[in-house]
Amino acid sequence: MSENKIPYKIYLEESEMPKQWYNVRGDMKKKPAPLLNPGTLEPMTIDELSGVFCRELAAQELDDTTTYFDIPEEIRNFYKMYRPSPLVRAYCLEKKLDTPAHIYYKFEGNNTSGSHKLNSAIAQAYYAKKQGLKGVTTETGAGQWGTALSMACSYFDLDCQVYMVKVSYEQKPFRREVMRTYGAKVTPSPSMETEVGRRINEQFPGTTGSLGCAISEAVEAATTQEGYRYVLGSVLSQVLLHQSVIGLETKAALDKYGIKADTIIGCAGGGSNLGGLISPFVGEMLRGENNYEIIAVEPASCPSLTRGVYAYDFCDTGKVCPLAKMYTLGSGFIPSANHAGGLRYHGMSSVVSELYDQKLITARSVEQTSVFEAAETFARIEGILPAPESSHAIRVAIDEALKCKETGEEKNIVFGLTGTGYFDMVAYQKYNDREMNDYIPTDEELKKSISQMPKVDK
Amino acid sequence: MSENKIPYKIYLEESEMPKQWYNVRGDMKKKPAPLLNPGTLEPMTIDELSGVFCRELAAQELDDTTTYFDIPEEIRNFYKMYRPSPLVRAYCLEKKLDTPAHIYYKFEGNNTSGSHKLNSAIAQAYYAKKQGLKGVTTETGAGQWGTALSMACSYFDLDCQVYMVKVSYEQKPFRREVMRTYGAKVTPSPSMETEVGRRINEQFPGTTGSLGCAISEAVEAATTQEGYRYVLGSVLSQVLLHQSVIGLETKAALDKYGIKADTIIGCAGGGSNLGGLISPFVGEMLRGENNYEIIAVEPASCPSLTRGVYAYDFCDTGKVCPLAKMYTLGSGFIPSANHAGGLRYHGMSSVVSELYDQKLITARSVEQTSVFEAAETFARIEGILPAPESSHAIRVAIDEALKCKETGEEKNIVFGLTGTGYFDMVAYQKYNDREMNDYIPTDEELKKSISQMPKVDK
Repeated sequence: MSENKIPYKIYLEESEMPKQWYNVRGDMKKKPAPLLNPGTLEPMTIDELSGVFCRELAAQELDDTTTYFDIPEEIRNFYKMYRPSPLVRAYCLEKKLDTPAHIYYKFEGNNTSGSHKLNSAIAQAYYAKKQGLKGVTTETGAGQWGTALSMACSYFDLDCQVYMVKVSYEQKPFRREVMRTYGAKVTPSPSMETEVGRRINEQFPGTTGSLGCAISEAVEAATTQEGYRYVLGSVLSQVLLHQSVIGLETKAALDKYGIKADTIIGCAGGGSNLGGLISPFVGEMLRGENNYEIIAVEPASCPSLTRGVYAYDFCDTGKVCPLAKMYTLGSGFIPSANHAGGLRYHGMSSVVSELYDQKLITARSVEQTSVFEAAETFARIEGILPAPESSHAIRVAIDEALKCKETGEEKNIVFGLTGTGYFDMVAYQKYNDREMNDYIPTDEELKKSISQMPKVDK
Repeated sequence: MSENKIPYKIYLEESEMPKQWYNVRGDMKKKPAPLLNPGTLEPMTIDELSGVFCRELAAQELDDTTTYFDIPEEIRNFYKMYRPSPLVRAYCLEKKLDTPAHIYYKFEGNNTSGSHKLNSAIAQAYYAKKQGLKGVTTETGAGQWGTALSMACSYFDLDCQVYMVKVSYEQKPFRREVMRTYGAKVTPSPSMETEVGRRINEQFPGTTGSLGCAISEAVEAATTQEGYRYVLGSVLSQVLLHQSVIGLETKAALDKYGIKADTIIGCAGGGSNLGGLISPFVGEMLRGENNYEIIAVEPASCPSLTRGVYAYDFCDTGKVCPLAKMYTLGSGFIPSANHAGGLRYHGMSSVVSELYDQKLITARSVEQTSVFEAAETFARIEGILPAPESSHAIRVAIDEALKCKETGEEKNIVFGLTGTGYFDMVAYQKYNDREMNDYIPTDEELKKSISQMPKVDK
């Protein structure tokens, strides 16, 4: 094994790092449906979007024709501190599974935010700084995105205001402290600092908050303070654009060793990691150059692709954001309380949704105990304790590798390992104590939340 | 900056990784003093040591003449999963400090144990497996070593029993869960499972334990169970031997780009990281080939090198282990309760102690608020949240770089960044809340603990 030509970790040279992001929409003949103004049901204009987002990010959001965007040098320099990330050949896992498949994973967890979220956070902070803003606001649930944004804002000396769902703020004090160490102001949501927060606190005394409420507070804070804009860590097309750096590096690393991926697997919540990982591969499919089997993996407890509908819906629970056409369970859907990891978004990036609708990618849902089982196996044999989100992809990668064992196929399986689980030990504890169980929403439940969606005839 | 020939991160190729560990004792004319049997005050024999340690590790412990030891292929394969670790050029920190100095750091935190401890844990687990043992026992305080050992044992399918100081077990449940995820049995110490644990629980009802007590329990567990041995994560010469992989990689990476280090800085608790980082450089000094300024950095609250005495002392508070000649504050010394990070060992590796006594290395002590200030600066500008231990080295690296700013010297400063602080957020919270303060032991206190040391006339 030690004499193998492919090393355990393939690192690109600094000079081989991508200098441009890839916008897969540019190569799509049928484009994702546009964002709609919830009042007029007309496509959002750049002027409308620029009230909430930085102007350059709003432009990226709306641009579905340009295929490549230059990555500004300042962002490339930041990337160099933690990128290129390694593409790892999982020799030990292959041996353990006794599979003829070759398993590779792109590991995005080697930075303090612990996930791929930093790739877009630094871009969004950069454009905010360039526009001369004072700061940005955002919401965070578990804290991964909030941490990434805090790091990015600290680097560019921008004020960072994070509304953190109150229950997480109290139960995950360590995530909160990482953000504070990076100089962010972290406010438990609902707070008494915004109108919407005060109203919710009054209506529901003692509430521990929700992501929808935190979004509403962050948007209000952005639009009522001079020199602030709101930023978001997933779902949006601009985020997928920035995250294409994952896929571009993955493809460059495979090409360097003459490896052709057969199956590409990514976990999917809002779709930022999956979209970023697969975009250059999908691009080849769209241009008729190559073919891949692509699998989006979602939790059985929040199955937007596999059990949702493809329709216009609100992006947020608070219904203050534009409407997006996407696979969705209805913006009122909330995963069961026993769902331990992330990937709890009710919808899916409109780009990923459209690719799925065009059957360029497939989807599969997995239950959480089998996900943590895969996580434990992976941690013990590959030496990295994975995030629960990432472990969804591990589960399916292992399943596919075991299929190869049966068929004897030497497939090249590539999956995205989006992050580490160091701040998710409460979930691991549940698994270790055998207190974790599965929950799959009933058809009734889904029907109910889907029936409450806006009726948009587009 | 982007056109600079030296990349942000220097990675060796897999083929350039060290195939041998370097034993600096082999090049020392005056050797470190031998371990003594506490009963006879005669040097420990391999047979005596083999009752507690694996035989091959006992042999490494006693061998002060062999300069190179082959790294077994199984260990090299494990190393390939997280090594070579990057040598990072701290471009952003240099710019922030506006210093002409070039700052490099060897980052050992990119693995789930979060520190360099894994380098020796995997070696110790390997030799235990090779000897046909069932398992190993150890103690852990904060949990870094326990985590590393759990990972290593899981890889080689060895039973791993960790006695974790009770107060840590209760206050750091996440560290405990990482160990459990890797299959380790973690027992709060003092426990009711060992004779010494039961005795201490009886004598001191409600005690929250100490490292000394946990060591005693782990040693008892190793020597009373068939097929078990005790392992230790620092201080010992065998550990420094395994950790030489840090220094060897550092030197290879510097050589690759024709960089000559001027100043080498490492934090020092028991001495394993410092000893590993500096050993190949000290080797060159011992052989008269080169000269370096080497600085060991210790906490002002536990200043064994800067304020201790060089004499034989017990390695453990429980006084069950052999005597070692070292710089020590007395085995009864316990750092002030407000000391937040690790580096709380009362003594210092006998190898590092002897190098210090021969004036091949220097030492400096720093206070914890200034350490956390450096940690915060570093986290914000270099994007890695450092372990409190590692931040001692950051403090002095920044101080030295600022001196260069005054003198205009373009020194090459290299320091060891031993790990990440993701499980140390309680300490960061204290710092963020401005509740952290400093404590320096008085001369009286040190005099008292030093006066209680054994009187050995060697």
